[in-house]
Amino acid sequence: MDAATLWQRYQDWLYYHEGLGLYLDISRMRFGDDLLATLQPKFDKAFADLAALEGGAIANPDENRMVGHYWLRDSSLAPTPDLQEDIDSTLSKIHSFAQKVHSGEIHPPNAPKFTNILSVGIGGSALGPEFVAEALGAVDAPMQISFLDNTDPAGMDKVIAKLKDRLASTLVIIMTKSGGTPETRNGMLEVKHAYEQQGLSLAAHAVAVTGIGSKFEQIAKQEGWLDIFPMQDWVGGRTSEMSAVGLLPAALQGIDIDAMLAGAKEMDAATRQPQIKGNPAALMALSWYYSGNGKGEKDMVVLPYKDSLLLFSRYLQQLVMESLGKEKDLDGQVVHQGIAVYGNKGSTDQHAYVQQLREGIANFFVTFVEVLEDRQGASIEVEPGATSGDFLSGLLLGTRQALYDNQRDSITVTVPRVDAKTVGALIALYERTVTLYGSLVHINAYHQPGVEAGKKAAAAVLDLQQQVMQILGEAAVPLTLSDLATKSGASDQVETIYKIVRHLSANQRGVKLIGDLAQPKSLQVSAG
Amino acid sequence: MDAATLWQRYQDWLYYHEGLGLYLDISRMRFGDDLLATLQPKFDKAFADLAALEGGAIANPDENRMVGHYWLRDSSLAPTPDLQEDIDSTLSKIHSFAQKVHSGEIHPPNAPKFTNILSVGIGGSALGPEFVAEALGAVDAPMQISFLDNTDPAGMDKVIAKLKDRLASTLVIIMTKSGGTPETRNGMLEVKHAYEQQGLSLAAHAVAVTGIGSKFEQIAKQEGWLDIFPMQDWVGGRTSEMSAVGLLPAALQGIDIDAMLAGAKEMDAATRQPQIKGNPAALMALSWYYSGNGKGEKDMVVLPYKDSLLLFSRYLQQLVMESLGKEKDLDGQVVHQGIAVYGNKGSTDQHAYVQQLREGIANFFVTFVEVLEDRQGASIEVEPGATSGDFLSGLLLGTRQALYDNQRDSITVTVPRVDAKTVGALIALYERTVTLYGSLVHINAYHQPGVEAGKKAAAAVLDLQQQVMQILGEAAVPLTLSDLATKSGASDQVETIYKIVRHLSANQRGVKLIGDLAQPKSLQVSAG
Repeated sequence: MDAATLWQRYQDWLYYHEGLGLYLDISRMRFGDDLLATLQPKFDKAFADLAALEGGAIANPDENRMVGHYWLRDSSLAPTPDLQEDIDSTLSKIHSFAQKVHSGEIHPPNAPKFTNILSVGIGGSALGPEFVAEALGAVDAPMQISFLDNTDPAGMDKVIAKLKDRLASTLVIIMTKSGGTPETRNGMLEVKHAYEQQGLSLAAHAVAVTGIGSKFEQIAKQEGWLDIFPMQDWVGGRTSEMSAVGLLPAALQGIDIDAMLAGAKEMDAATRQPQIKGNPAALMALSWYYSGNGKGEKDMVVLPYKDSLLLFSRYLQQLVMESLGKEKDLDGQVVHQGIAVYGNKGSTDQHAYVQQLREGIANFFVTFVEVLEDRQGASIEVEPGATSGDFLSGLLLGTRQALYDNQRDSITVTVPRVDAKTVGALIALYERTVTLYGSLVHINAYHQPGVEAGKKAAAAVLDLQQQVMQILGEAAVPLTLSDLATKSGASDQVETIYKIVRHLSANQRGVKLIGDLAQPKSLQVSAG
Repeated sequence: MDAATLWQRYQDWLYYHEGLGLYLDISRMRFGDDLLATLQPKFDKAFADLAALEGGAIANPDENRMVGHYWLRDSSLAPTPDLQEDIDSTLSKIHSFAQKVHSGEIHPPNAPKFTNILSVGIGGSALGPEFVAEALGAVDAPMQISFLDNTDPAGMDKVIAKLKDRLASTLVIIMTKSGGTPETRNGMLEVKHAYEQQGLSLAAHAVAVTGIGSKFEQIAKQEGWLDIFPMQDWVGGRTSEMSAVGLLPAALQGIDIDAMLAGAKEMDAATRQPQIKGNPAALMALSWYYSGNGKGEKDMVVLPYKDSLLLFSRYLQQLVMESLGKEKDLDGQVVHQGIAVYGNKGSTDQHAYVQQLREGIANFFVTFVEVLEDRQGASIEVEPGATSGDFLSGLLLGTRQALYDNQRDSITVTVPRVDAKTVGALIALYERTVTLYGSLVHINAYHQPGVEAGKKAAAAVLDLQQQVMQILGEAAVPLTLSDLATKSGASDQVETIYKIVRHLSANQRGVKLIGDLAQPKSLQVSAG
C-alpha cells in the first residue's frame, strides 16, 4: 500500500471521541474492505446481546446472574430502583469514608490519622486497584498503598516489613466476596498476626469489601471493623474496578473517582452505538477478530508508551483471558477460545523483544497506547528542538512503522493524558470490547469454570498433607514414599506425596527425608 | 497415562543438582520416547557449538564478536590472560567501590554517605538489575535502588520526585555501551537537570558503566565522575547481569555477588555436559523444541510461585525473545523463529488467566518455578496444620495437575530458596538453554538486527520534526498537513507529520492545530 493510500486508510478508519479526546486507529490492521460486511450479522447479534445485558438480562447463564458493571457508572441504567439506590449510596459512602479518613475523623487507636493503605485481595480484587494506583497514585498522595495479592509468606513478610512502624497508622482493606478465597483469608490472618505482634488489633484498622450477607460480613460486623462496603453479586471480579473494590482504595489515595466513573460512562455511551464504524469497542473487536481469525490465533501485545500504564497489560490479562479463554461456546461446542495478552511498556520493551516482534514468529498483533501529554510542566531539550517526550513519541511511531513494514499489524489508542477520566475510559473501552468480542465468538464471557479445577486440586493436596502428617506422626519407623502413600489411602498419589514431604521438610515442619534426593524412590520419610 | 506410569516418568526424567539443590522436572511435557534419539544429532552439534563459543570462537558472526558472558563467572575459562585479568580486576574493583561507598569513604559532596542508588539504563542495562533487585534486595539493605529505564518524561519525574530530598545522597549509575542509546542519554540529561535544580553537580554523584574507549567514557573522565566500570564488547546486553552492569548495583545493595557468580558457575559446569540427560539446559531446550515443534509454535508462560521472582518473566522476555526471535537462520533461510514469553507470578496469575490456560486456546506451555523455602522463620497456621506456604505449594501442584488433566504441558524448576546463588544459577540455566536451543534451530542467538529498524525509523521521525518546526516557523499562514508535508520535502509522510504536530500541540511546543480533530484533512497547522 503506498503512502497516500495508507494515509487515506488512516483517515477512513480513524475514530475520535471529542469529550474524551481519545483516538482509535485500526488502519494498520491489514483487513480487506469485505470484512465489515462479512461480520455485520455477527455484530448485529453482538449489539443486541449488549443491549440485553445492560437491560438486566441474565448474561451469565451458568451462574444465573445479571452482569451489571456498566450500571456502576450510570446508575440510572440499573434495572431496578433498589439496584440504583445500592450503587448511589455505596458511592456516597465511599466519598464520605475517604473524607473522614483524610480529615482524621476516622483514625486508628494509636495515631491521629491513617497514613497508609494495605489492600488484601487477589485477582479482580488486586489487578484493578494495582493498575489504578500505578497509573494515578501521586507521589504526594494523602495515603500510599501497598498490596498483599498472594499467599507467599516471604512476599507478605516483605510488604509488612516495609510498613513496619507505620502499621499502627495503616488502614487495612480486606477484599473477598465470601471470605472463601484462601489467598485472601491467609493474607488477612498474616496481617492480623503482624498487628497482634505489635500489640494492635486488626479490627480497629480494618475495612471489609465483601458480599452483603456473606459469612465474612458477619465476622467483620462481630469484630467491629471500621466499616463494610458491598461487593455486589452482579459484578464479576475482573470487572469490579468501578465498584467499591476499585473506588474505595482509589478515593483513599486521593484519586478523582468521579472523573474515573465519568470517563467510563462516556465510553459506555460511545460504545452503545449499534454501528461498527463510530463505535470504538466494535472497531477494536473487529480488529481482534480479524487478527486471530475469530479463534485467538494471534497474541495481543499491549505496549503503552507511558511508564504509569505499566500494569495495564496485567490488568488486561485477566479481563481478556479470563473472559474469553473458554473451552465451550454457548451451544456447548468445544471451541478452546481465548486471546493471550502480554506486554509491559514502550519504549522499554523495544529493547527487550521488539527484535522478535519485527523479525521473528508473526504470532501476535500489537496495541500501542499513545499518551499525548509528556509531563506536567515544561521539558528541557535533550537535543536542539527535541525533548525526551519527542523521543518517546518518535520511538512509538518508528516501531509501529517498522512492524508494519514487516507485515505485523497494530492498533493505536491515543489518549490526551493519563488521568482518572482517561483511565476510566480505557477500562470501559476494553470491557466493552471483550463483551462484543465474546458475542462475536459466541461464548459466555462472564464465568470462569476452569478456575475451579485448580482450586479443587489444591484443596485435595492440602487434605492429603493432613493425612500424610498424621500417618507420619503415628509411624514407628521411617516409610518409603510408596508405603506412605498406601497408608495414606492414596497409593496413586506418590508424586504428590513426594512433593508435600519435600516442601514440609524444607520448612522444618517436622518431616525428615533420608536418602538420595536425586532418587525419590530411595527416600525414607519420618517425623522429626 | 496412569498414576504409576506417570510417577515412573517423573523419576526417569528428574534432574537434580546437589550443589545447587535444584530440581528440573520435564515429565509433564508429553513427548514420546523417540524424541531423544531424533534430536541427538542436533544436540551433538549444539554441544560442539557451545564448547567452541566458550573457547572464544566468533559466535556472533554478524558483529564479528566473541560471546564471553560465561567467562564472567569463571575467568579461568577466558581465552586470553588479558581477558581474565579484565574480569578479575573489574570484580575486585566492584567489591572495593561498594565497600568504600558503604563505609562513607566515597561519599557525596553534601552528605556523609550515599543512601540511594538511581540506575539509568534500558534493555539489558535495566532488566537484569531490576529482576535482581526485586528478587534479592532486602528491606534493610544498605542502599535502596530506583530505576530510570525509559524516556518517558512523566515517568522520570515520578522517580525523581520520590527521591526528592535524598537526591543529594543518591549515587547515579549511568549504563550505556557507547552513550548512543537515546533513552539512556535522555535519562542522564534529565537527572543532570534535576541535580542542577538543587544546586548539585551530577558528576560528583555519578558512576559510568560503559565501553572502555567509548565517547561516553571520555565524557565521564573529563567531567571527573566518581568512577568508571567496563561494559565489555564480548558481553551482550541481554547476558550482562554478571558483568558490572548487574554486579555493581547488586553489590551496592548489599547482595552477595560472589554467591551469584558461584551459582552461575556451578550451573555453567552442570550444563557443559555433552549429554542430554544429566544436562538441565539440554533437557529444557529439548522441552522447548518439543513443545513448539522447533518453531516457537507455543508461548512460554513463566509462573514463579514466589513474589520476589515477579520480574523473572520480564527478564526472560529479553533473553529468550531477543536471542531467538530471528528472521533468518545461519544459512540465510527465512525461518521467522522465536518463542513468546510472558507471565507474572503464581498463585496470583491463577486468578487472572489460568481459566484460559486450562480451558482456552492451547497455544502455550508453562514453566512453574517452585521455591521450597516459604520464608525466613516460622509460620503461623492458617488452618489446623497448614500454613500460607502450604497453600502456595498446594496451588502450584493443583494447577500443574489441572493443566495436565487438560493436556497442557509444563516444566517445573524447583529451587531451595531465593538467594544470590540460586538467582545466579537460574540466570545461567536460561542463558545456557537459549544457547543450546539457538543451535538446535540453527540461528544466531547473539545479534539483534531487527532492533535497528525501529531506531532508524524513530530517528527519521525526529529529523522530520526538526524540518516541520522550521517550515512552520517560516510560514506566513497556517498550512494544511498536505502543504506542510510538501514544504518539508516529505509529501509521502503526511501521517507521520500529522502525528508529530498533534504531539507538539498537546505539549505547548509552539504548534497550533485549527479545525476538526476528527478529520485530519481539515486541520490547519501554524506556529504559535
